Amino acid sequence: MSLVESVLQGNRLALARLLTQVENETQQGLEALNRLYPYTGKAHIVGVTGAPGTGKSSLVNQLIYALRHPPPGQKPLRVAVVAVDPSSPFSGGAILGDRVRMRDVAGDADVFIRSSASRGALGGVAASTANLVQVFDAAGFELIFIETVGAGQAEVDIAHLAHTVIVVEAPGLGDDIQAIKAGILEIADIIVLNKADRPMVDNAERALRMMIEMASRKPIPAAENSQSAFPWTPPILRTVATEGTGIPAVVEAIQNHRHYLQTSGEWERRERHRLQSELENLLRAALMKRLQAAISPEAYRRILSELVSRQLSPYQALEILLDGGKQ
Amino acid sequence: MSLVESVLQGNRLALARLLTQVENETQQGLEALNRLYPYTGKAHIVGVTGAPGTGKSSLVNQLIYALRHPPPGQKPLRVAVVAVDPSSPFSGGAILGDRVRMRDVAGDADVFIRSSASRGALGGVAASTANLVQVFDAAGFELIFIETVGAGQAEVDIAHLAHTVIVVEAPGLGDDIQAIKAGILEIADIIVLNKADRPMVDNAERALRMMIEMASRKPIPAAENSQSAFPWTPPILRTVATEGTGIPAVVEAIQNHRHYLQTSGEWERRERHRLQSELENLLRAALMKRLQAAISPEAYRRILSELVSRQLSPYQALEILLDGGKQ
Repeated sequence: MSLVESVLQGNRLALARLLTQVENETQQGLEALNRLYPYTGKAHIVGVTGAPGTGKSSLVNQLIYALRHPPPGQKPLRVAVVAVDPSSPFSGGAILGDRVRMRDVAGDADVFIRSSASRGALGGVAASTANLVQVFDAAGFELIFIETVGAGQAEVDIAHLAHTVIVVEAPGLGDDIQAIKAGILEIADIIVLNKADRPMVDNAERALRMMIEMASRKPIPAAENSQSAFPWTPPILRTVATEGTGIPAVVEAIQNHRHYLQTSGEWERRERHRLQSELENLLRAALMKRLQAAISPEAYRRILSELVSRQLSPYQALEILLDGGKQ
Repeated sequence: MSLVESVLQGNRLALARLLTQVENETQQGLEALNRLYPYTGKAHIVGVTGAPGTGKSSLVNQLIYALRHPPPGQKPLRVAVVAVDPSSPFSGGAILGDRVRMRDVAGDADVFIRSSASRGALGGVAASTANLVQVFDAAGFELIFIETVGAGQAEVDIAHLAHTVIVVEAPGLGDDIQAIKAGILEIADIIVLNKADRPMVDNAERALRMMIEMASRKPIPAAENSQSAFPWTPPILRTVATEGTGIPAVVEAIQNHRHYLQTSGEWERRERHRLQSELENLLRAALMKRLQAAISPEAYRRILSELVSRQLSPYQALEILLDGGKQ
């Protein structure tokens, strides 16, 4: 049986091997992606982002546990995590002081955690992460978390890969309102105010509410076939992830957001947007590779030297390179 | 007199107008960049980065003031700031509680502060920031700060644009060591531990020292013409930026690092690396634009639809697009 078939039948060892192939961008890995692709498109992809110290790894850990142990009558979901943050405990560290320890979920056959350490030759971290997500999706994982750290481009990239974006904040991350960036809130579908047992949590929530009301939300034109009269308003949910407090409400918000996406036509719109971003990312990388193959290393070095010595400006060097390196 | 000539002669109004042209990527702006480019290469470009709440805007503010009011016998430097973070007080907000207020430096004719709000059609935020830096460099600003927020890609991009990278940390950004990311420290030339009047500052410094010792530093092969027997070790400097405490030591470290770069051959190496990154960034964007012009919007839409319906995988769609859209 081929590696792809084994993965589709739920073989965990085959999955681990294929993820490595895909991450290393081997020929076998890229061919497997093509073969697996028709089986994708079912998983709910949930981005989780926030500054270091907000406790987002603990939160993801608790969410996995809750999704694996739902209330009676609900089906436990198969859950995967792609941790893009290399400092994440999912990449080898330990979450100390957590009630739910990593080993509680790590031993579960329907949970798969993978760190995305590769910087990805073909399109960078975003492409590499998208590929891992595709494999998990095809392998039947129903909810896939992508965990990233920090503020900035990483968040925007996540928003392009995920159906639902959770932004994690914590009180006391600096005593000023600057700690809460309007830019991050723009991509949030759900806001989790973690470490809510800390002092100043009321202030932090008030500031967040103010920022959300002020922030001109990301211009998402309503889908044409929208059946929802009201747009989604990101809820602010308090948690103490290390204690497991407030987790069921976050699980419910994730499910509500999925329902909102599917009934409003937003799901298709985001899916299309997501795949377009992914394709354009691959294109940029491939075009660059093709150009590099067309220009002799000597010509490239000469142009670069003239750039450094200020004989050519960047835009002039660009014109020459686009012209095949002829001066 | 042309706009470019006025800028070269130090006309502040012309500078403001040209920055806007460059930011909007108008034909006039891009032509001006070509004409200004031979005048660049003199400024010391200093990246300042750190998570929200570390107080990096207050620090930059104090550094500007110190560089404008040096000890007797030293020449005040002309200073520019490109604030990439849209939530930065330099982009319109206020730093409350600072001894040195924005207006103390904002009224100074030899200080120019500009936020880089543009996402930049031709190569994104990084290209847009690089262009603003070029204009300031040509206009005779001797030290240019680039301020960015967050952890992740933004930091790596800054490291490619700057000669010297200052990473700002603060105690109590989360009670765990995770708050301090090894990834950020790898790009740091100078580490500032701001808000050093807070409790736990000793712990934070100890953790930072440990991380630096453990972190395998970014593999920078020594420049071949290196005259320095010892590599640079990033100093950890304590400040309370809102009080102006510890600022002279940071100014000294910036000057020391410049001296280190220039005597070790690292300056040329970073300059070359910086310009190469900038050029490749422009190339990627230009190649993408060219491809989009070569493929009919109908063909592109059809390929995208087949991607969404899972008839084509991303890599298969890529092959077709690289082939001019022919299926």
